[in-house]
Amino acid sequence: MATWISRGLRGSTLEDLVNRTNEQYREKGLALVQKIPTPITPVRMDKENRHITLAYFDQRSTVDYIGAVQGIPVCFDAKECSAQTFPLANIHPHQVKFMEDFEKQNGVAFFLIFFSYLNEFYYLTFRELMGFWKRMEEGGRKSFRKEELTEEFYLPKKGGVLVPYLEGIKLDLERR
Amino acid sequence: MATWISRGLRGSTLEDLVNRTNEQYREKGLALVQKIPTPITPVRMDKENRHITLAYFDQRSTVDYIGAVQGIPVCFDAKECSAQTFPLANIHPHQVKFMEDFEKQNGVAFFLIFFSYLNEFYYLTFRELMGFWKRMEEGGRKSFRKEELTEEFYLPKKGGVLVPYLEGIKLDLERR
Ligand SMILES: [Mg+2]
Ligand SMILES: [Mg+2]
Repeated sequence: MATWISRGLRGSTLEDLVNRTNEQYREKGLALVQKIPTPITPVRMDKENRHITLAYFDQRSTVDYIGAVQGIPVCFDAKECSAQTFPLANIHPHQVKFMEDFEKQNGVAFFLIFFSYLNEFYYLTFRELMGFWKRMEEGGRKSFRKEELTEEFYLPKKGGVLVPYLEGIKLDLERR
Repeated sequence: MATWISRGLRGSTLEDLVNRTNEQYREKGLALVQKIPTPITPVRMDKENRHITLAYFDQRSTVDYIGAVQGIPVCFDAKECSAQTFPLANIHPHQVKFMEDFEKQNGVAFFLIFFSYLNEFYYLTFRELMGFWKRMEEGGRKSFRKEELTEEFYLPKKGGVLVPYLEGIKLDLERR
């Protein structure tokens, strides 16, 4: 089976890869994760064609994905990064708050960071993110660097699953 | 605090009530449930104003709400019913399949049925729905009647919460 490496992301977006991964996990009975669509408010309709002819993007979205993994509530966001440095401006405070509340409900929240220039996926636990986030709030740097990350949380590049984030969840739970 | 009874649904839709309930539960630290927006695909943009000037409704949505309740993955759909009979045509097969898979992941899936003419909320467990669904598939009636429902699964009409569905989840888990 072709993996995301051999396909080289040709014509695929990160979202497509994660969506297809979710389908793979669903077929195997390992997880059921739902993509949350970008909230759009329709304003005007063309009734004949059922087209929307005027709409707005809502300001606040929360996370990209929510679901259930073998009894565990899970939510995550996928982010692409094309450099050695990930700017925390890419993550919104209300998103962090949502994930914080989700973890308080004994769910697992995380970020999938795709380092596109290296074809690497990193599983950023919510607590690792919070380390960087608090550093910023205390006046430190507004980003984190790739070298600061934890080696074991890079997703393995084998197996038939495109973005094997369940390996990350497993490790995340073990390290708590 | 005004409840949904005293407010009498004036100017409120079922969706608003459930959204406000979710906020109440979130503030109390009892649950974190996310509304899943109707999937809309934007096709054309007005770049100056960031308006969407052409978009389509996607064909398949899954459930209205998904989230975490004190360690339990939860998903549900809210449906309004203005008569003694609820037509199963209001529920789509891919929605039933999604909920079935969600329950297989040890999540809790259910329907919130709002009998608008009585101001009553009913918590329809996934397994009760499946009873009606299978009856239909076996050639029986394509609906269920209010008298067929289980008395204890009507949501209580007291307390400060608008639509106290956590009471339903609690009972649902007890009855498994
Ligand atoms: Mg994203
Ligand atoms: Mg609904």
